Amino acid sequence: MKREINYINFCAAGFGGGMELNMKAEIIAVGTEILLGQIVNTNAQYIAKELSELGIDLYYQTVVGDNPERLKSVLNIAFGRADMVILTGGLGPTNDDLTKETVAEYFGLELEMHEQSLNEIKSFFERLGREMTENNRKQAMIPKGAVVLKNDNGTAPGCIVSKDGKTAILLPGPPKEMAPLFDSRVAPYIKSGADSVIVSRSLRIFGKGESSVEALVRDLMNSSNPTVAPYAKEGEVELRVTAKTESEEKANLLINEMIEKLKSRIGEFIYGYDEDSLASVTVSGLKKKGLTLSTAESCTGGLIAGTITSVAGSSDVFGFGYTTYANEAKAAMLGVNKETLDKFGAVSEEVAKEMAAGAKKNSGSSIGVSATGIAGPGGGTSEKPVGLVYIALADDNGVICKKLNLTGNRERIRGLTVMNVLDMIRRRVN
Amino acid sequence: MKREINYINFCAAGFGGGMELNMKAEIIAVGTEILLGQIVNTNAQYIAKELSELGIDLYYQTVVGDNPERLKSVLNIAFGRADMVILTGGLGPTNDDLTKETVAEYFGLELEMHEQSLNEIKSFFERLGREMTENNRKQAMIPKGAVVLKNDNGTAPGCIVSKDGKTAILLPGPPKEMAPLFDSRVAPYIKSGADSVIVSRSLRIFGKGESSVEALVRDLMNSSNPTVAPYAKEGEVELRVTAKTESEEKANLLINEMIEKLKSRIGEFIYGYDEDSLASVTVSGLKKKGLTLSTAESCTGGLIAGTITSVAGSSDVFGFGYTTYANEAKAAMLGVNKETLDKFGAVSEEVAKEMAAGAKKNSGSSIGVSATGIAGPGGGTSEKPVGLVYIALADDNGVICKKLNLTGNRERIRGLTVMNVLDMIRRRVN
Repeated sequence: MKREINYINFCAAGFGGGMELNMKAEIIAVGTEILLGQIVNTNAQYIAKELSELGIDLYYQTVVGDNPERLKSVLNIAFGRADMVILTGGLGPTNDDLTKETVAEYFGLELEMHEQSLNEIKSFFERLGREMTENNRKQAMIPKGAVVLKNDNGTAPGCIVSKDGKTAILLPGPPKEMAPLFDSRVAPYIKSGADSVIVSRSLRIFGKGESSVEALVRDLMNSSNPTVAPYAKEGEVELRVTAKTESEEKANLLINEMIEKLKSRIGEFIYGYDEDSLASVTVSGLKKKGLTLSTAESCTGGLIAGTITSVAGSSDVFGFGYTTYANEAKAAMLGVNKETLDKFGAVSEEVAKEMAAGAKKNSGSSIGVSATGIAGPGGGTSEKPVGLVYIALADDNGVICKKLNLTGNRERIRGLTVMNVLDMIRRRVN
Repeated sequence: MKREINYINFCAAGFGGGMELNMKAEIIAVGTEILLGQIVNTNAQYIAKELSELGIDLYYQTVVGDNPERLKSVLNIAFGRADMVILTGGLGPTNDDLTKETVAEYFGLELEMHEQSLNEIKSFFERLGREMTENNRKQAMIPKGAVVLKNDNGTAPGCIVSKDGKTAILLPGPPKEMAPLFDSRVAPYIKSGADSVIVSRSLRIFGKGESSVEALVRDLMNSSNPTVAPYAKEGEVELRVTAKTESEEKANLLINEMIEKLKSRIGEFIYGYDEDSLASVTVSGLKKKGLTLSTAESCTGGLIAGTITSVAGSSDVFGFGYTTYANEAKAAMLGVNKETLDKFGAVSEEVAKEMAAGAKKNSGSSIGVSATGIAGPGGGTSEKPVGLVYIALADDNGVICKKLNLTGNRERIRGLTVMNVLDMIRRRVN
């Protein structure tokens, strides 16, 4: 859970050192490209996640363009609410890049040439075999007294400026430079002052909506340590349990106790934890039981197979997938009876069952699954509306079928069908 | 070029109406998940891009958690700088979701039950076959006098609250609900007040990277009206041509002139315009020529078929898909020779060609395509490294094959393979 610490700084002056606990931080992303949506602000997400792991409170994030006036006003607002402000972007060599200048002005500090950084930049260009331009020198100018953060992946060093209980941490904008710099230098800097540990674990839930889950565990969501918070994602719900204590052992203890309580309420709907996905638990469940799977797909058109094979190593359990979009394909590839198709239509329990049984039989796999339905936007009737989907599973115990009434657009209906099929396999295998 | 406008609102009271031009907007994303970096703030990016197209100035973006006090203070700051504040998130059914309540309080308005929205929510749950919980009623509570924005993809309607020259636009947090709501209802609302017209058209480019495209059209990118701006997406490049004039006709004239210039430089790499995707142009190309397609997939595991069938109406051209993840499946389902597999290995030009030919033959389609490769992370060797993929196409003129050397993780390699196969079909059909 702990990262390796590789904390190199050239400490130009006396301040720096660790952060107090319970300090409040803010993130300011500087850059017109982010402001206008040309790139997405992944830096803020990255830093926010890291701060949360470090136990630093974060209440606001801001984005502002490459404009010193507006950046200054944003800095003023941020330091009115927080002790530590982390800025990304605006450390480049161009005239637009003014974060250091603006922060130095805010703190009433001069910029001065940092020789060690200048040498780093020079040798960076030498290694690249390129000539260093004059404006790259600007990148080695640092607010007087700042802690300089060496950038191993680019020319712009970061820096930490502290004065009167306020700390600004300046980091380069490119995520490939920012993230390693944060991990190797900023996190250890912050940690060196922290005395508590935050651990969290996520429960992944399928088959119940966010409000139904909440209704079942509302009292537990009032717990203050560990906290329990729900997050709705497409088709599923995540419950995150987070503990903040003096040691990792104690945090895990608190979390495990809470998870037991949650399990007793919503056990069967919990399909996994943390980085698990329906596809990954399905594949590992099949693997554990030594079972193999084949797919027969109509409305999902290959997505069930595509989702299963998104899991590395799925070839141990999956070899054959039949995408039978046309009725002739259902007959030719899966042996679905023409009479069944004629009598009940392609979107029917009967056809879904024959598809699943055909996939199992023709592939020789332990389990065959199928999906047939109306994904829309066209093709619906009052009897068989858009969103009507039949999914089936055939194994040595027989064939089961489930009727789904899904809503939303074509993409959503197909996506939810895939999830329902995976959950059907998961439940059958366990 | 124009999006279909489907602007349905239930205007509860008299205000609403269009926006003035040169108005300043801000974006506030509300949600602890975004604040703490559990999800990335793609909503802000989406809205920022759209505002920029609409000619609305945007100087700040803010993120704040599900906390009414802090949201209120952020609203105060935002309305001190801007006339229009667009908020996303916090419209859900849970007790944490307090955006509407906070905005109503800020404007000094009551919340009242909006019966039409309540009925929409009820029928949403009916279609789902699930019971509506009491807390979903909360989603139909709307600040008095607000313009209600019907949400076609979820239960939370959006709304527009205007008072004293300040306008707050509240949108749901899930991107799949927010984006269509913005496009279908908010953009027309904003446009209706503008006195100049902004029209843009996107060229979709596959097979050339952003910097190569830029190098070919750099001089055209200096044009000020229309502007030409590149956007890199996964695997493809979009060039957006935007004109701002007094009429739509004049704007279209300027845009078409520019497009002709761009075509003369990068013609063959332009696969489509605006909402086109490689899948949609492939399907419509096949349809026009009266051709049918089948797929034979190894490393993509069904995703080529899944991507083709993401296009509504693809059943006219696609009926049979073979996901042959195992070698036995390649032999049994596609008739790939065991000797070819043994001699050259599954990832080889020879197997790719036999797979494509087998798909064409067994399905009776005009074209068969295939993909076989090493998607990683395991399974690579020095001879056949991760990212090596062969794709092939068989039609009545014979079989062609292309070797790809892709980089990135499993998901990216599979995604780029799908795009390359679609582009191969597109080029062959045209």
